[in-house]
Amino acid sequence: MQTVEIIRKKRDGNDLSTEEIRHLIQGYVKGRIPDYQLSAWAMAVYFTGMSTRETADLTLEMVRSGEQVDLSAIEGVKVDKHSTGGVGDTTTLVLAPLVAAAGVPVAKLSGRGLGHTGGTIDKLESFSGFDTSMTTEAFVRQVNQLGLAVMGQTADLTPADKQLYALRDVTATVDSIPLIASSIMSKKIAAGANAIVLDVKTGNGAFMKEEEQAIELARAMVEIGSRIGRRTVAFISDMNQPLGRAIGNALEVKEAIDTLKGDGPADLTRLCLALGAQMVILAGKADTPGEAEKRLEDAIADGSALELFRRFVKAQGGDARAVDDPDSLPGADVRLEVAAPSDGIVATMDAEAIGLCAMQLGAGRERKGDSIDHGVGIVLSKKTGEAVRRGETLATLYANDPDKAEQVKGRFLNAIEIREDPVKPPRLIRALVTEEGVQRL
Amino acid sequence: MQTVEIIRKKRDGNDLSTEEIRHLIQGYVKGRIPDYQLSAWAMAVYFTGMSTRETADLTLEMVRSGEQVDLSAIEGVKVDKHSTGGVGDTTTLVLAPLVAAAGVPVAKLSGRGLGHTGGTIDKLESFSGFDTSMTTEAFVRQVNQLGLAVMGQTADLTPADKQLYALRDVTATVDSIPLIASSIMSKKIAAGANAIVLDVKTGNGAFMKEEEQAIELARAMVEIGSRIGRRTVAFISDMNQPLGRAIGNALEVKEAIDTLKGDGPADLTRLCLALGAQMVILAGKADTPGEAEKRLEDAIADGSALELFRRFVKAQGGDARAVDDPDSLPGADVRLEVAAPSDGIVATMDAEAIGLCAMQLGAGRERKGDSIDHGVGIVLSKKTGEAVRRGETLATLYANDPDKAEQVKGRFLNAIEIREDPVKPPRLIRALVTEEGVQRL
Repeated sequence: MQTVEIIRKKRDGNDLSTEEIRHLIQGYVKGRIPDYQLSAWAMAVYFTGMSTRETADLTLEMVRSGEQVDLSAIEGVKVDKHSTGGVGDTTTLVLAPLVAAAGVPVAKLSGRGLGHTGGTIDKLESFSGFDTSMTTEAFVRQVNQLGLAVMGQTADLTPADKQLYALRDVTATVDSIPLIASSIMSKKIAAGANAIVLDVKTGNGAFMKEEEQAIELARAMVEIGSRIGRRTVAFISDMNQPLGRAIGNALEVKEAIDTLKGDGPADLTRLCLALGAQMVILAGKADTPGEAEKRLEDAIADGSALELFRRFVKAQGGDARAVDDPDSLPGADVRLEVAAPSDGIVATMDAEAIGLCAMQLGAGRERKGDSIDHGVGIVLSKKTGEAVRRGETLATLYANDPDKAEQVKGRFLNAIEIREDPVKPPRLIRALVTEEGVQRL
Repeated sequence: MQTVEIIRKKRDGNDLSTEEIRHLIQGYVKGRIPDYQLSAWAMAVYFTGMSTRETADLTLEMVRSGEQVDLSAIEGVKVDKHSTGGVGDTTTLVLAPLVAAAGVPVAKLSGRGLGHTGGTIDKLESFSGFDTSMTTEAFVRQVNQLGLAVMGQTADLTPADKQLYALRDVTATVDSIPLIASSIMSKKIAAGANAIVLDVKTGNGAFMKEEEQAIELARAMVEIGSRIGRRTVAFISDMNQPLGRAIGNALEVKEAIDTLKGDGPADLTRLCLALGAQMVILAGKADTPGEAEKRLEDAIADGSALELFRRFVKAQGGDARAVDDPDSLPGADVRLEVAAPSDGIVATMDAEAIGLCAMQLGAGRERKGDSIDHGVGIVLSKKTGEAVRRGETLATLYANDPDKAEQVKGRFLNAIEIREDPVKPPRLIRALVTEEGVQRL
């Protein structure tokens, strides 16, 4: 099989066979096919796309390129949830104990944050002593005993994806729907998921700026799942402003605890119930979204979700007392209130810029390996569509460096637009994409 | 300047600046930019194209990447001629002495043949002792004394083009008009041409199978020439059958000698007069094609073209007696006549297949560095549109191996189609492309 002929075939808009995709990916991982041929192929894919069959084949080849987490010793349907990345996205912290309390086993591999988006492990490490390094055996045991475990990604999952992603990053071939879809799905499948609930973000703080692009990506992933027997559903949700009100690690943990108590922000609560209901359904623990949401609401109301969170933090070495005394979580020396410069309505919030403000305060990393400050971040007092008077607090910046806080204040104000005319807040959940099609919500 | 941003810009269909193109090409040649970024850029160019300004900038960067032949010591306008490669294309052998005899200085750098197309140096080496290795000083001196010299490409011309071409060859990015155009033009400009006459072949034996593609390539090259002050004109000529009747090195030399005597095949003579007339005009030695062709016809009629050829062969160490005694050129032991299998009209000739037949007889190289046999080849008795009777000779194969000749005979017959219906021969010269536009002929 001649690699140049495979590239030409794709360049000319033809579908590659399963064997041709295997030749490319295996050859690449084994060093038989050089970077320059893979990058030319990726650019050809950028322009000519891939069929669902090709995308599913690519996904499976990437799964096969490395280790796969074996979750078969965990009873029940293992449902994983994945977000394409947002700002202040506290859903995993809420969802994991919430659906576990509703009887869905949660065996989650998580990562750290980079750039304007946060990472679940960083947030959990706000609990003193919290540890996500464990063997797969310990991970499986904890899920069986407790219903929930979060493990850092230590195994060599999908090395082909890692290698290809690094190449795409430097050759302007990242933003190709089939390549993004197969990259995400390969990681979820290698991590052992039987079924997957996706939260595809759209808006100024999301990778997919346009809703139609987000839907296209969701469809591609749902179709991959369908082809390879891992039921997948996807919500399209808004990221034109941060989700909830907190951005920053300990701040988001506090918000998650509030949400598990039933006192969380309305948008975060709504999204968690919607995503969680689909997880419950895929796990076979309910038949309808209404029934599933009821189970989740009950787990909040009767305190079982919060109790499971407590036990989970403790099981992984964290100081669980902080669940009941959130003020003992890492804090910040400086609290700087950002006052509204004029009367009006919050018209737009640049979520990505706000995420970068939190990063600049120390809540996130500019580069892999940077250290972070768990106590710092931003809490929004006003969100899009809300009225504000001149001098009223828009947000509070939590910092450990007064100069940094002052710098970020200016950037934060630039990220907010206040107008006189009334503004509707963006719709939170835009669509649900399933094997049956796209349901606009 | 970030290379990935330059690739993205081109991917998104935007024009790159002169500085961005310089960054890419200089960075690549100096090893600062890796192959995988250049191949992704080349694939993006395949899909989104390049403006004339970008293509001219790329051409100049490739010229600047290496040495440039300085022909300033040669008086007059140095006009180079380039063919995109065909079968039995004896034009350079005829044109070089012909236009030199008409007062146009010819300082030609030439190469060797590969695959189904021949090379001028190989053909000239049919003369015993002929040598194309010389210093640039000797080259310039000979042109000033004699009006004509042919030098092998020894200098390190356009290394960027060589490197980029090798990369394009293995990444399915060869067939991009702006990349082909800049590759050809950069070599001609580095070789010192002030003006260029191009012969862009189209048809089954040419790289450009379709006439419209050939015109597009011609336009791109004429525009490059215009932008960088090297006047360029291009003919689109037919390559749906070999040019002339001879294919093979000594056989083509004999045909060239016949043509210089006024006894050559009509198509070869016509194309040489058309190309030569444009060279004479660009050199400022005539104002109209009619006037220019008259000068060339005179140089044939009064024997001055042939006399210049004699002196040229001698000046470069060749045995010039062979000009007057062509039978003393290398010959072949075996002459095998290919008889027509039926009565009819020659309807199609697969020029590429016929070129490969000649290569198989030993006239050409499969791989760089292969040795060739100057005496072997094919002489066509019939060409497209000509009537033939069953058993009549279609062509004579000249070989030094009877078995090979028999094998090639079968392949040759497969390359010829004989039909009962009358067939028009393909039009030889399809169009003339100049700065003023495309003139269909």
